[in-house]
Order: sequence, then structure tokens, then C-alpha cells
Amino acid sequence: VSAEGGARGALRDARQGPAALAPFFSSRWVKAPSFVRDLGLQAGLPAGFRAAGVASGIKASGRPDVGLLVCDASSCTSAARFTASSAAAAPVRVCKDRCDLAGLRALLVNSGCANAATGERGIDDAQATQRAAAVALGVEPSQVAVASTGGIRQFLPRELMLRGIERASGELRPDGDADFQRAIETTDTSEKRACLELELAAGMVRIAAQCKGAGMISPRFATMLCFIETDAALEASCAEPLLRDSVGRSFARTSVDGQLSTNDTVIMIASGASGVRVPRGREDEVRFGEALDALLRQLAILLVADGEGARRIARVRARGGDGDRLELAARAVANSPLVKAALYGGDPNWGRILVAVGGALPALEPLAMDISIEGIQVCRAGGVTAYDEAALARAVEAAEVEYELRLPGDGAQAEVFFSDLSHDYVTLNAEYTT
Amino acid sequence: VSAEGGARGALRDARQGPAALAPFFSSRWVKAPSFVRDLGLQAGLPAGFRAAGVASGIKASGRPDVGLLVCDASSCTSAARFTASSAAAAPVRVCKDRCDLAGLRALLVNSGCANAATGERGIDDAQATQRAAAVALGVEPSQVAVASTGGIRQFLPRELMLRGIERASGELRPDGDADFQRAIETTDTSEKRACLELELAAGMVRIAAQCKGAGMISPRFATMLCFIETDAALEASCAEPLLRDSVGRSFARTSVDGQLSTNDTVIMIASGASGVRVPRGREDEVRFGEALDALLRQLAILLVADGEGARRIARVRARGGDGDRLELAARAVANSPLVKAALYGGDPNWGRILVAVGGALPALEPLAMDISIEGIQVCRAGGVTAYDEAALARAVEAAEVEYELRLPGDGAQAEVFFSDLSHDYVTLNAEYTT
Repeated sequence: VSAEGGARGALRDARQGPAALAPFFSSRWVKAPSFVRDLGLQAGLPAGFRAAGVASGIKASGRPDVGLLVCDASSCTSAARFTASSAAAAPVRVCKDRCDLAGLRALLVNSGCANAATGERGIDDAQATQRAAAVALGVEPSQVAVASTGGIRQFLPRELMLRGIERASGELRPDGDADFQRAIETTDTSEKRACLELELAAGMVRIAAQCKGAGMISPRFATMLCFIETDAALEASCAEPLLRDSVGRSFARTSVDGQLSTNDTVIMIASGASGVRVPRGREDEVRFGEALDALLRQLAILLVADGEGARRIARVRARGGDGDRLELAARAVANSPLVKAALYGGDPNWGRILVAVGGALPALEPLAMDISIEGIQVCRAGGVTAYDEAALARAVEAAEVEYELRLPGDGAQAEVFFSDLSHDYVTLNAEYTT
Repeated sequence: VSAEGGARGALRDARQGPAALAPFFSSRWVKAPSFVRDLGLQAGLPAGFRAAGVASGIKASGRPDVGLLVCDASSCTSAARFTASSAAAAPVRVCKDRCDLAGLRALLVNSGCANAATGERGIDDAQATQRAAAVALGVEPSQVAVASTGGIRQFLPRELMLRGIERASGELRPDGDADFQRAIETTDTSEKRACLELELAAGMVRIAAQCKGAGMISPRFATMLCFIETDAALEASCAEPLLRDSVGRSFARTSVDGQLSTNDTVIMIASGASGVRVPRGREDEVRFGEALDALLRQLAILLVADGEGARRIARVRARGGDGDRLELAARAVANSPLVKAALYGGDPNWGRILVAVGGALPALEPLAMDISIEGIQVCRAGGVTAYDEAALARAVEAAEVEYELRLPGDGAQAEVFFSDLSHDYVTLNAEYTT
């Protein structure tokens, strides 16, 4: 089965015009390793996977809202990461409490309802749909991860879900990733999806991923979700740290509005169908990790760039001797509404960076911080220094802006990617009563 | 000398119409003690004080920008609180390093330039103006507190300041508080000023205060400043804890955008000119503290309500057994851009409150929190509960909205006052390049 023809045009529309043909690795902040090839949006899933996405009526718009993905190799391995929020949604709790997270074989995902703040009834609903998917796919319930995104405070429409599962299970295809992707999206305006081919010492393998988020966390359309499939053969004890580290270097380093979703979920499944083993501690594991890093970092940047209302994105990178302080400093800048508003306005107002870090690190008084923007040093040891104001004004009007902070000491660094604060952010989050 | 006539009309204009005649205690969240009387905006300063405010050309607009205040009683006492930011501005560092903070006799304040991120030159500039004010007023430099508000990254225009000090020192008057107030304002749109009379057991005393902030912290127009004068006789060992506690219950419990200014300064001076002593540990000290609390809480709420672009303000009050957690929870709600945008939009979207607290308190999983809005319970033990949606929708359209959080345990509470997130906030902070 092929997704050529009509699907190609639809995909191009979904990516809004010329961007449809843009390469996946589009940010200067991500280096694609030389042994990685972008296969484009029509490559389908790696060997051993089938997926589908259908419209079951959960979304009032009638758009796709139930996605199903299955690994046909019974010996597959997996790894998962979830939101740290103590208000985690029912599907997250079901995954953590009832799934074999190292041996997942299927994903059931819905959009249009987050099944969050729904108490015991929410847990029951999530489990009922998990069981239905297991029956439809011929696997154990504990092998089916569930994930939801959409409005908080609403109960999962169980009947619609069951109908969606039944239909989707009849439409599973090796190139069903595009349909699956659409079924997990909410306010996303760009398609965050990729399929990469890796040249390892042991042979060729593929990694694909489907991701949603609109880059921001909102109870209306909560959450970032990302699902990763590979046909490499990974031991579970290898998959878990690989995923943990790559998530730690990508999604965990982003901020649209500093709000942690109730539903964040990242799951990787390895089918082994390529026959290529990636053993622990070997060069191929390093390569696989590098490719996974690049994949997730580019997806994370796409999330931030698609943050609700976002016009510009930025990276703040802090260097110095104390990693914990650098982390606080970088996150304080990324979450400052003043820095974000300046980013939106193309305003080179670095005083706001000083304010953000000074408030986050009160013990460092006096704050002897250097600040550079796009390589132009504007602040030395906490005080103004001479710089080319016209060059700076031009630099901050780019689509990607880089802030560098230098704190005392050496050897540590922290980076965060973030979006701006725009009128549209306020409109999207204030004017549409939910 | 009287401020009647022209000044009254000007004040009314400054307060934008009918609000000029509104009583000072306007928020339901502040109870004025029965022994306190609001003397209105024309009462002038308590006995023993003179003040002035002049336009010296620091502000390009030509509006007043240098304020001077002196206590004529040589035996006065004082107390001071400053920003916790490690990027504290030069005037804050000069106050902390070079002033007798328990024996201040004068205040030199300018708007239009924060003298922040200005390094050693900024310290020199602040000290030069401090010395000039001391000479003009016949006091010691260490008795003159300096405070600045305005743009970060600019050096203090020393000559303009010296000229302003000279002129202001010739215009000091017992009712100069209105002029002083105008000289310390930046983007403020309401006049945050009061004079109260207190009936103590030992006699009548007065407390006046002048405050600025526009409720928000911005490098363009940074800072909240508040200056308090009383004719009560306070020992310095009494003034310090009284001010510390009242600031802790007022200005320290506000958020417009969660950003800590480089210049925040609160100073109280007691002249003793009433002849009424407020001894430590007596009932009159409790009464004075209650009045000071009410004064600063109402001023803090006026600051928040005048936050740039603010349409609505809110109080979040968290109760439970663990004070530190309640503090984190209340501040997370007050600083959430999603909660703020919902407040602006009059959107009863309490899922965002759950998201904010769930992200701030990851260890509490599962988050068994109750939420009430304006007395209507919407969430029980982290899950949705039945409520009157129409009543809730009406309640969140008021000018002041109250959120109550209930976490496990008893005996502790934390409250924070905050403003909304509006289109005007973005416009003010994005579109005017500084």
C-alpha cells in the first residue's frame, strides 16, 4: 500500500504551502549526523509497524481523533517517558500502573479529550479503551499504551472511542503514519513527523516519529505527545536510557509558557524487523543515540516554533561552573514574559535577561554575568558595554535568536529553546471561552 | 501652605475622573481597622516631613522626575526593604552599603532612569547625587536614601540630577507629597498615595505613603517603590520588624509577571513629631502594625490593578498543612500565563489552575486538590465535580476574582494577588522598542 498521489497533495496542504517540501532538519541548532538520511514524509513506517487514524466524533470539528499503531513483531522492546506533573491525566496513570513499559506493542491515542481531572471514572474509561484495543489487535492490555490530548475536565466519550478503535483496527497500514499523525493533532499548524534512515556498522535501520503539541500546554488542547518507531533490534535495557537521555536533551529543554501538561507522553517501540541489532556499549548504540537526539531535538524545535501565536523562537545557552544555577538561569530567561514579549517585538532589550536571572539567582549578588545576543556582547560583568546597536537590532529580527549567558566558573552548560509571547497567544488563551 | 484649588482638580484628572473621589480602602481583600481614618489625598504629610518633586529633564516627556523628602526631626528612626535580585541597581547597593538604614532622614528619588546594569560608574553617580542631597538638606550622606526607577542600561544623567536636587530642595513643603508622588511615577495610571490617621491609646498619629509601580516590572519602567512617613515615635528596633512583616504580607505577595525588579525599595521614616510613642510589645504597636498592614496591602493591590494592561485582578489563597508547598502552589497559579489569560478573558477554565499546581508540586502525585472559584467548588480531590456553570461564568467576570485551593493537611495558608495577561501587556512590552 502506498501513500502517493492524493496523500502527497494533502500533506503539502497540511504543511501550508512551500514548507511541505522543506527538509526535516531545518534549524541551525540541530546537526544531522552524516550517517542519517531524511526519507521525507512519504516513507511510511519502519518495518514491523502498521498504523491508522480515523474520525470517530470526539472532536466536534469532525477531524480525525483516534489513532492506533501496532508492532507486528512479538519480540519488540520499548521505553516511555511521562509528564512529571502530580496532576497527571488518567491515561498517564494507566500507562505507569498497568503497562509493561519495556514490552509495549501498541499505542492507542485520542485527541479532543485529555481525560484529565476525571478521577476514578477517567481511569475506568482509559482501561476500557485499552482492553478494547488489545482485543482488536490480539495483544495483552498491558502491551497497549494509551495517551490522550484535548480538553481537561471532560470525561472520555467511551462509546465513540470504542467505535473508533474498531474502525481504526481495520485500517492499519504500513504507511498509516500520516493518518495516525492527524488523529493526534490539536491546534498544531505544522506537521511534526519524520522518517530517518541510519547507516550503522551492522546495517541500515529506520526511525520514524509522529509528534504533536502546538508547542504549548493548554487545558483546551493540552500536551506534547511523541511516538517513535524503529526497526532496529534494541534491548529494553538499552532503549530506556537512550530515550531518557534524548528526551532530556530535547523536549525537556523547551518552553512555550512554562506550564507542564497533565498528559505529556513519549514512547519508543523497536520492532527489530530490520534484523540489525544495536548492542549496548558499542559504536552503533552511540550512533543510534546521536540520530535519536537529532530527531527529537528537531521535533522539539518544531513544537516550540508552532507554539500558539509564535512568531520567533530563541535558544538561551548558559555556561559557567554550576550546572544547577545555569539551569535556573536558562529557564528563568525562557519563561520570562518580558523576554518573550521582547522576542516577539524584535526588541533587543537585554535588561530583561538581567532581570530574569537576577531574580532567579538572588544569592549570586552582585550578578557578574556576561550576555551576548547573536554573538554581539551587550553586557559585561552585569554592566552595560559598548556595542553596535544597529547590528543588534537587525540580529533580533531573525526567525531564530540566540542568547548566551556567561556566569562564573567553567565546565557546565544548560540550554532551553523557547517561543515568544504574542497577541495571538493572549487571544487564543483568553478570548475563546472553553 | 495648602494644596486645595488647582491641585485638587489636577489630582482628580490624574486619577481619571470619578475614581479621584473613591475612598482609599477599595478592595474587599483589605479590612481597614476601625481605629483608622482615611484623610484623603489633600491631607499632606504627617508632622515633621517636607517633600517636593520637580521636572529636571531626565524624562524626555518633561514630566516630574526628581523627588526629595526630608524629615526635620533629627531624632527620627527608619527601616528599609530592598529587592532580593542579585542584579540590584546602583541606588540599592548604595543604600545597603553606605546608609544608616535605621536612621535615615531623607529620600532622593528619580524616575526616568533606573541606574541599573551601570557598574562602578553607576555607584559613583548614585553617591554623587546622595552627597549633593545631603549638602542641600544639611544632613549626612549616610542619612540620605537613594532610589531610582526607569530604563535599565542607561547611566544616570548626573548634571540633570544635581540641578533637580537644587531646585527641589528649595520647594520642600509639608504638603509636597503630591509633587513627590508624581516625580516617582513612570507608567502608573492611578495615584497610589494615602494619608491615614490612627487612634492609638497614647494619642493620634498619622501615616502617609507614596507608591509607584504600574504593578509590573519592566526594564523600561522598572520597579515598585514605596515611601512611608509617620509622626509616631518608633524605636528603630520596632520599625524594622513592623516594616518587614507588613511588606511580607503585601508587596511580597503580588505578581504581575513574576519578574523581580533590580530597584524595588520600601522605606519608612518615623519623625516622632506627634509626641506619641509606640513602645515595643504594647497594644499600640499591634495597632500600628495593623494599620501599616492595611495601608501596604491596599497599595499592593492598587499596584497589581494598575499592572500594565490589566483588566482584572485576582487573589489565590491556598490552605493546607505544608506552608512551603502552599507558597509554591499559590505563586505557580499567580505566575501562570494560562491562568492569567483566562482571568483576562473572564474564562472559568480551572483546569489551568490544576496544571499550574501539578507542575509546581510534582511530588504530590496524585494531586488531591480542591479548587473553588468565588466560593463555587469546581474540583474535588483533583477531579471534576458538578457545579453551576452559569453562576461560575458570571463570577469570573467581576473586577476581583478569588481562587481558593485546598491541599491536604491543616494550619497553614499562602495568598498571592495577581493581575491578568492582556493584549495591552504584550503591546506595551513588545511593540515599543526601548
